[in-house]
Amino acid sequence: FRSKLPDVGTTIFTVIGQLSAQHNAINLSQGAPNFAPDPKLIAGVTKAMQDNHNQYASMTGFRPLKTLIAEKVATLYGSHYDVDDEILITASASEGLYSAISGLVHPGDEVIYFEPSFDSYAPIVRLQGATPVALKLALPDFTVDWDEVRAAITPRTRMIIINTPHNPSGQVFSAHDLDMLAELTRNTDIIILSDEVYEHIVFDGEHHHGMATHPALAERSVIVSSFGKTFHVTGWRVGYCLAPAELMNEICKVHQFLMFSADTPMQYAFAEYMANPETYLSLAAFYQRKRDLMQSLLVDSPFKLLPSAGSFFLLAKFDHFSDESDSEMVKRLITQYGVATIPLSAFYTDGTDNKLIRLSFAKDEATLRAGAQALCQVK
Amino acid sequence: FRSKLPDVGTTIFTVIGQLSAQHNAINLSQGAPNFAPDPKLIAGVTKAMQDNHNQYASMTGFRPLKTLIAEKVATLYGSHYDVDDEILITASASEGLYSAISGLVHPGDEVIYFEPSFDSYAPIVRLQGATPVALKLALPDFTVDWDEVRAAITPRTRMIIINTPHNPSGQVFSAHDLDMLAELTRNTDIIILSDEVYEHIVFDGEHHHGMATHPALAERSVIVSSFGKTFHVTGWRVGYCLAPAELMNEICKVHQFLMFSADTPMQYAFAEYMANPETYLSLAAFYQRKRDLMQSLLVDSPFKLLPSAGSFFLLAKFDHFSDESDSEMVKRLITQYGVATIPLSAFYTDGTDNKLIRLSFAKDEATLRAGAQALCQVK
Ligand SMILES: CSCCC(=O)C(=O)O
Ligand SMILES: CSCCC(=O)C(=O)O
Repeated sequence: FRSKLPDVGTTIFTVIGQLSAQHNAINLSQGAPNFAPDPKLIAGVTKAMQDNHNQYASMTGFRPLKTLIAEKVATLYGSHYDVDDEILITASASEGLYSAISGLVHPGDEVIYFEPSFDSYAPIVRLQGATPVALKLALPDFTVDWDEVRAAITPRTRMIIINTPHNPSGQVFSAHDLDMLAELTRNTDIIILSDEVYEHIVFDGEHHHGMATHPALAERSVIVSSFGKTFHVTGWRVGYCLAPAELMNEICKVHQFLMFSADTPMQYAFAEYMANPETYLSLAAFYQRKRDLMQSLLVDSPFKLLPSAGSFFLLAKFDHFSDESDSEMVKRLITQYGVATIPLSAFYTDGTDNKLIRLSFAKDEATLRAGAQALCQVK
Repeated sequence: FRSKLPDVGTTIFTVIGQLSAQHNAINLSQGAPNFAPDPKLIAGVTKAMQDNHNQYASMTGFRPLKTLIAEKVATLYGSHYDVDDEILITASASEGLYSAISGLVHPGDEVIYFEPSFDSYAPIVRLQGATPVALKLALPDFTVDWDEVRAAITPRTRMIIINTPHNPSGQVFSAHDLDMLAELTRNTDIIILSDEVYEHIVFDGEHHHGMATHPALAERSVIVSSFGKTFHVTGWRVGYCLAPAELMNEICKVHQFLMFSADTPMQYAFAEYMANPETYLSLAAFYQRKRDLMQSLLVDSPFKLLPSAGSFFLLAKFDHFSDESDSEMVKRLITQYGVATIPLSAFYTDGTDNKLIRLSFAKDEATLRAGAQALCQVK
């Protein structure tokens, strides 16, 4: 049977999730909260359903929700998006990434992205008949080597995929990174696809350096974000996309046939909820407390933590006490110690093993404590 | 700007929806109910959210829901699907169609489908670098000419797309159609993609002749269905896919990166709700009353209705009293008479105009009466 993705197996999040469930492990693997969202948000969905908002939303999304997004982005980042032509509500950030790549990348194009990377980018690019070009972020800081990017750009480069704050490393772009990216793409047709689903989770008083903060980048960027990550409801499948009208037009051509519209009652609920900016502005402090707790609980573990500047992930190194592969380590942690994490090698197409595991701290305090306790036992 | 779909505009459902809203028209256009779903179903979503089922569902879907689908399909149609490997919960039937085509159709393949057709099939095929091959259904019965299909099959034919009950004509496959399709595809690698979102809306005591009722077809078929159409919640974006494991494996490779998982609280609610088969078995009688009402209300209109054997659509002919194009007629109905319908030409890639408009009778009685009254005024 001729597969379009012959070497693609089941996503690591499913594989580890199943193993974790089998062993009843404390689950620090998938980037999904295990705590409840604000009851107000749930009440909003119930109200929308009872008010009879249960049929197809408009194709590009519920207009009041798009208006709030435009206002948020203008206030926080200084870029202005037209509510009708430059904002799209998607059925998850995943769908946004897919519609953007599918709408904009042609067969034969090259798409530069950085590894370690969220596992969907490369397969989506390949499904378009295009070539993903993976550049490796330099450890231990996971910074972009802009000279390497310059050298990787060819006349066939159609898109560069950015992800800041970065999953899985927790690193963030600086203003300097944005300037370098702008310089490299000036006078080219290169589109930036920027996965900014952790935009509201930047720590230590720093600002999010997303594409909408940089006018020269904004005009060539598709920005993807998520309500699920921001409001603790990853299972509600609503996200959004920002892009200049010319790019958005092509993205909508895919979205309208792939999905038509995103979940209606959830869109109503988000529109009501995010009218209060505190709902998202409080997120950084909320997760910083969890990061700090996790770091302090793991001080006496054998693992060495790398710093996390954003997202809800931490990387932990183990090669000073074990020469296992990261996959072996993850398996042993689940089966012997009852704690589930993700091996960093899963975020490299070539399986590069840096002896790092990824922990998600999007968990309630009891889970973080129990997980940390298990990790402290490891020998 | 080089578009992947240069000749694709905004989907007709959005265009007419906007025009209809501008003129405050009675909306018989999009195939979406304007009445409320069962309050029990809404209560089920609320309960799921309150019980903390708000994070990612498993990639292939909530297992109890998949189990109920397997039981339903076995009972109604006699085919058996493995709950783990042959059933996928999708974020809408649209996503199911997209993931199936994207996972299974390679560049250079040909895909046969029938026009008039739902407007997503051909663009999705084209996005794969494959060629959609449109065959026209014969009016006035919208039957498939199987000799024409035989003649259209080439060594590059990868897939045939079926839709029964049929949108927009309301026609249904017979047992004979299934036998012909089985005969034509025997000893080939051709995959059937069957859009059966109206499977529970078959009128006049007839049975649904879907692919799962025919073992030789079931083994080469991907069947797509919808919870939104069946339970009056088209805005909740949950559907499902059935396919033999080998095909499903390829579909999941796309689904897991495109969407990862479908809406969690809605899946819980559907699982609780459809445990009672009356919830879907009652649908045919429910919509038959609406069809019959609409037919009786339009007896004195100038339009001639074609029969509808399934779905919630009716076609109406007007060339005996007007020589307008169907698009002109639709525009005039909205602007002069305040009633919105869809021109059948929108369902043909070449814009064939058969002087037919499509009415959706998935509306409450007051709307059907008001819409019919407007249509009775037309001159
Ligand atoms: C859809 S995959 C799960 C969430 C996530 O982003 C992660 O764990 O990396
Ligand atoms: C997603 S499009 C709208 C619904 C539909 O199937 C139709 O009206 O034909």
